[in-house]
Amino acid sequence: MKTSYNIALIGTGYIGKTHALAYQAVNSVFPDTPKLVKALVVDINEAAGRRFADQFGFQSFSTDWKDAINNPHIDIVSIATPNFLHKEMAIEALRAGKHVYCEKPLAVSIRDAEEMADAAITSKGLTLVGYNYLCNPILQHAAQLIQSGKIGKPLFFRGVNDEDYMADASVPHSWRCERKLAGPGTLGDLATHLISLSEFMVGEVASVSGHLYTAHSMRPDPNDKSSSKPVENDDVVSMVVEYANGAHGELSSSRIAWGRKNRLAFEIHGDKGSILFDQERLNEIELYCATDDAANQGFQKILAGPAHPAYSAFIQSTGHQLGFNDLKVIEVRNLLDGIAHGKPLYPSFADAIRVERVISSVLQSADTDKRVGV
Amino acid sequence: MKTSYNIALIGTGYIGKTHALAYQAVNSVFPDTPKLVKALVVDINEAAGRRFADQFGFQSFSTDWKDAINNPHIDIVSIATPNFLHKEMAIEALRAGKHVYCEKPLAVSIRDAEEMADAAITSKGLTLVGYNYLCNPILQHAAQLIQSGKIGKPLFFRGVNDEDYMADASVPHSWRCERKLAGPGTLGDLATHLISLSEFMVGEVASVSGHLYTAHSMRPDPNDKSSSKPVENDDVVSMVVEYANGAHGELSSSRIAWGRKNRLAFEIHGDKGSILFDQERLNEIELYCATDDAANQGFQKILAGPAHPAYSAFIQSTGHQLGFNDLKVIEVRNLLDGIAHGKPLYPSFADAIRVERVISSVLQSADTDKRVGV
Amino acid sequence: MKTSYNIALIGTGYIGKTHALAYQAVNSVFPDTPKLVKALVVDINEAAGRRFADQFGFQSFSTDWKDAINNPHIDIVSIATPNFLHKEMAIEALRAGKHVYCEKPLAVSIRDAEEMADAAITSKGLTLVGYNYLCNPILQHAAQLIQSGKIGKPLFFRGVNDEDYMADASVPHSWRCERKLAGPGTLGDLATHLISLSEFMVGEVASVSGHLYTAHSMRPDPNDKSSSKPVENDDVVSMVVEYANGAHGELSSSRIAWGRKNRLAFEIHGDKGSILFDQERLNEIELYCATDDAANQGFQKILAGPAHPAYSAFIQSTGHQLGFNDLKVIEVRNLLDGIAHGKPLYPSFADAIRVERVISSVLQSADTDKRVGV
Amino acid sequence: MKTSYNIALIGTGYIGKTHALAYQAVNSVFPDTPKLVKALVVDINEAAGRRFADQFGFQSFSTDWKDAINNPHIDIVSIATPNFLHKEMAIEALRAGKHVYCEKPLAVSIRDAEEMADAAITSKGLTLVGYNYLCNPILQHAAQLIQSGKIGKPLFFRGVNDEDYMADASVPHSWRCERKLAGPGTLGDLATHLISLSEFMVGEVASVSGHLYTAHSMRPDPNDKSSSKPVENDDVVSMVVEYANGAHGELSSSRIAWGRKNRLAFEIHGDKGSILFDQERLNEIELYCATDDAANQGFQKILAGPAHPAYSAFIQSTGHQLGFNDLKVIEVRNLLDGIAHGKPLYPSFADAIRVERVISSVLQSADTDKRVGV
Repeated sequence: MKTSYNIALIGTGYIGKTHALAYQAVNSVFPDTPKLVKALVVDINEAAGRRFADQFGFQSFSTDWKDAINNPHIDIVSIATPNFLHKEMAIEALRAGKHVYCEKPLAVSIRDAEEMADAAITSKGLTLVGYNYLCNPILQHAAQLIQSGKIGKPLFFRGVNDEDYMADASVPHSWRCERKLAGPGTLGDLATHLISLSEFMVGEVASVSGHLYTAHSMRPDPNDKSSSKPVENDDVVSMVVEYANGAHGELSSSRIAWGRKNRLAFEIHGDKGSILFDQERLNEIELYCATDDAANQGFQKILAGPAHPAYSAFIQSTGHQLGFNDLKVIEVRNLLDGIAHGKPLYPSFADAIRVERVISSVLQSADTDKRVGV
Repeated sequence: MKTSYNIALIGTGYIGKTHALAYQAVNSVFPDTPKLVKALVVDINEAAGRRFADQFGFQSFSTDWKDAINNPHIDIVSIATPNFLHKEMAIEALRAGKHVYCEKPLAVSIRDAEEMADAAITSKGLTLVGYNYLCNPILQHAAQLIQSGKIGKPLFFRGVNDEDYMADASVPHSWRCERKLAGPGTLGDLATHLISLSEFMVGEVASVSGHLYTAHSMRPDPNDKSSSKPVENDDVVSMVVEYANGAHGELSSSRIAWGRKNRLAFEIHGDKGSILFDQERLNEIELYCATDDAANQGFQKILAGPAHPAYSAFIQSTGHQLGFNDLKVIEVRNLLDGIAHGKPLYPSFADAIRVERVISSVLQSADTDKRVGV
Repeated sequence: MKTSYNIALIGTGYIGKTHALAYQAVNSVFPDTPKLVKALVVDINEAAGRRFADQFGFQSFSTDWKDAINNPHIDIVSIATPNFLHKEMAIEALRAGKHVYCEKPLAVSIRDAEEMADAAITSKGLTLVGYNYLCNPILQHAAQLIQSGKIGKPLFFRGVNDEDYMADASVPHSWRCERKLAGPGTLGDLATHLISLSEFMVGEVASVSGHLYTAHSMRPDPNDKSSSKPVENDDVVSMVVEYANGAHGELSSSRIAWGRKNRLAFEIHGDKGSILFDQERLNEIELYCATDDAANQGFQKILAGPAHPAYSAFIQSTGHQLGFNDLKVIEVRNLLDGIAHGKPLYPSFADAIRVERVISSVLQSADTDKRVGV
Repeated sequence: MKTSYNIALIGTGYIGKTHALAYQAVNSVFPDTPKLVKALVVDINEAAGRRFADQFGFQSFSTDWKDAINNPHIDIVSIATPNFLHKEMAIEALRAGKHVYCEKPLAVSIRDAEEMADAAITSKGLTLVGYNYLCNPILQHAAQLIQSGKIGKPLFFRGVNDEDYMADASVPHSWRCERKLAGPGTLGDLATHLISLSEFMVGEVASVSGHLYTAHSMRPDPNDKSSSKPVENDDVVSMVVEYANGAHGELSSSRIAWGRKNRLAFEIHGDKGSILFDQERLNEIELYCATDDAANQGFQKILAGPAHPAYSAFIQSTGHQLGFNDLKVIEVRNLLDGIAHGKPLYPSFADAIRVERVISSVLQSADTDKRVGV
């Protein structure tokens, strides 16, 4: 088994920073995990890239992402660039036999995403997509509760992913509002988390009825405040889904939900109980078991603690709260352990492509006003 | 103005009891409201009916509901019988010029309901349908907040109405599971509250995409425990609606949601703020106003109190909590005041028929897999 | 067994109204309870009293409370007058052999209260003091959980009773601020509920260390706005208590707690678990049992329902919420059933006198800066 | 201004690990902060120490803490050893002119703590004590709200710090139960956080009435399960305090509170509003402002976000949640910035000594049953 891996990070923006913080912490938090070497960071902006390399201690820097592919010492290529660049980078890296750690969503079109998933099949490199919310110890525990039958057979999933970053009608028009540049709106942004979470909890989505809604159909032109421009994609998406295992679900997501900041929340009803979660309180789930006696039944609020996977690597006491960045550390740990031990990574490209297929099906369903198989 | 009204109550079951309790309390709680005289109670079961008349102090008793219609001293006929009996009683009472106070839902078919609504148009009697949740002071306040523009233009409504009375797969088959006897399942029972609440808050529903799901498709035959019988109606209903005013919404309702007891909950997102409500805590709403400064924005939990309509008639201090039965007292107050002052009652048959039309449209949409206008 | 009891109500103010509403409802809600006849209402204000008698259907009216004592047909005398009048009325009624249902607190001085308790010992009448919060079905359930050992031996009680009716420093001076008229401030008003609740849950208080705090030491003179007058009693009281059974507790109460409306809340820690309650959500408790497995331990939120004492008399479904006034109906039911079946009433004068003794001990402790036995 | 500081960490246990993680992250999270160099780590256990040095990338290792003092290149000495060792190390380091970053509590006796505080006065080194909960962005915001007058003059503070690590009576006897080794129990452990938080929010404590309670007075002898040994210190401590500014408070802390994991919670009532906090949800406060109109008053739940100090260094969106370890990173940033810019550090030894004095006063008050000045 290799005991050390060289990683190349492409992209140093918002999400690039959370990657670098996680690379830096992973071996300290999880000392038994193979060593991660910050070998190379790539950014087209040389000044920003060099500063970043210095700030996080990368061994080298380049403005050319192909350096990450062509360098034989690089084991893992991490892609944290704008979405439209994912495809070429990922496919090249996979062809070169690298492991690829790609941010979500996979790509800006289903066709691109399918090509990426195909490339993964024939590569010796493993793939992981950055749906780091799934790494939350209390969500991992929730998944284990379901697998162990604690709430019986999952029958119904009702989930939302709401934020309010576009709730103000005076937020100016931008690339986010253009279908060509951004693809779908909320559906392609927030809803991806919700779909991946739903599949993680319940299983594969088999068909979907999708509904798009643009509440603010015009937004101020940033270049000419006296006029406005049309918004081409959805503020809100509503999905009514059937899972392959027979369960049903409702997935709803909004970028105009005033007051909601990071509300990725769900409830799952099984035939023996229910589980609730809300990411605005990411260290808690609530569990209801129908087997309790009638006078004492109720939702039980479970706080994340050492009894839940990976938590105690950060802190040894219950109730001390992990944060968003800690989840990324767990994700990187999973990446390294998976590669070292040949364990399957989750969600791989093969898993994440299903999210893209659901998105594609939602668009088709919204167009045709018919349920669409995924 | 008449200062006293004679009421006849038909039906003495579960909901009949809440009626009688409200008749008894209304003039004490609201001393300025016209006098309500418990003139007659009707039940086909003579023993039960007489006991009920005695228990609640009705002046007279009959086993024949036509006595309520034919008695010229009766001003108001209250219908709390099984749903399939509503139509004939309501129409007869309206023809006789009585005011009709009918329990929800109006009828077991859209055709029956339409006939009732038609009868109301030509009668001099007023009509009120027993959606008493709407009488909740804190919900009345929520509606006023919306009307006053506190959250701006309502854009999106997301509501649920969940209970768990059929969550256990071993609950035996009954009339509730038969389409002929019960009509739709959750859609005809719980979802009616949700639809009426949604219309009260946002406005009329213009079209709907409806989805039905039967999680427990077979239930034990109560007469032969070794076999089971098919469930013919929905455990869960999902609706994606458009309102006439351009807002959108999602309405979801389940009778198999383990742990949910009376969760009639919603969130409304406007272009200036949001409001939240959950009936399992019926003395609270949460209000978010986008106009607060960024560092202090958040959902504000408002407790019902004397500043809200009708509350102080029950108790003079904030935070002392009203209960379910108190809401029925307010409903009866509204009935009497409306009749006495010729104020329109809400929801009248003309309002409630829209709930029935939505239900009908949902059924049609679920059948055809197409959005259906209401 | 008598099947009907005549009650005389003395006093028709705020709390008198809640009495009358409860008298009116009790036999309808609880049909098996002996009949309560609203025989007489007394108020020194003839106009107000007559109006009240009419509003609630009392058979007769008087301006002289002695009519309640001297009338041999009266079985129960209910005292809802200002506190300083309780003593004479209660003692006269007990001497006349009446059952006495007296509002809290018993009296304005410990000496008066002791005389009342003495009179109760030698009377054939039973006594009940109106601490109606204790009648809450979910609190009755909490008490049963404790008695059944669900949380083991109670070790520690931490309770608060907070409101904000004096939080505004500009609330003018009144009789409430004068020691001669009001006695202690928060201690004599809000804290009485907390003390009675604490004794109901844990047992008798054996000793107390008491601390009084007057935050707003001067208040505007209502008659001369340019000047202000000293406040002579406490805004906040802090008590550290020992119970006779060895448990300890902290009781804290404030009338200047901005935002708290009716927060009578506690947590009890036993050696096997804990229970939480907050009266601003009076249909819920939370239960923690140490015996659950580590990964799933948490506070379980139990909603009031038919599995809890007296709830189903009001409504047959869980989660439908009782209100403040419903608790008074249960109290009156307890009164009638206790009298009819010779069951001990709780809290009787003998129980309530302990609340007064605790108050007296707190005052003494605050004066002497020493722990004081009760 | 120096742009780089060498730190020596003494102690590699539970809290040492959180230190090392924070040293590692601080310059990446806060790139404008002076460079921190992990120069030396000290542990008496050579194997463990070497492993730790390797895991976290310290430049050198020693088993002798004096190497940290005597090395002229070391700028900052961090003390994360058992409490009884703090005094000698801190005083030696201060004498050598080092900056000292010492874990809480300062020492095991008030005399030792006073000596440390004295040494700090005459040293050119700055001091910081590791009460990292105070670094929480949402608490910093709460403090700013108070300072800006948002809730008016703080009048009353009610705080708790509860855990359940000794709630189980079968937890065996240990050094924690011996007064000689551990000093006070909960008072010396959990309550220190509460006292420091209370002083941070309201101001200096002037006097205290203290009450100690040992619920489990005997615990099993770990060496002889058939017998048990006496517990010499407190399971629960209750403090009723007066602040120098005239405010009052109640501080309560328990190590036997089943279900409480890290509940450091408080409410502050001012004359214009209130603030609530509970560390089990460390990204939230609730704010009540009395100036809102009556119908809409309520507690407003504010989620931590970029509008609050230091938050956006970790993540740029509201609601994404910081964790316990992130607070330590902020603390180390404060340390470095303070040293570099000569800003006073909070809490310094001069601040933390007040916590020790409160503890000492509580012990004295509990002994004498009298209020004691601090």
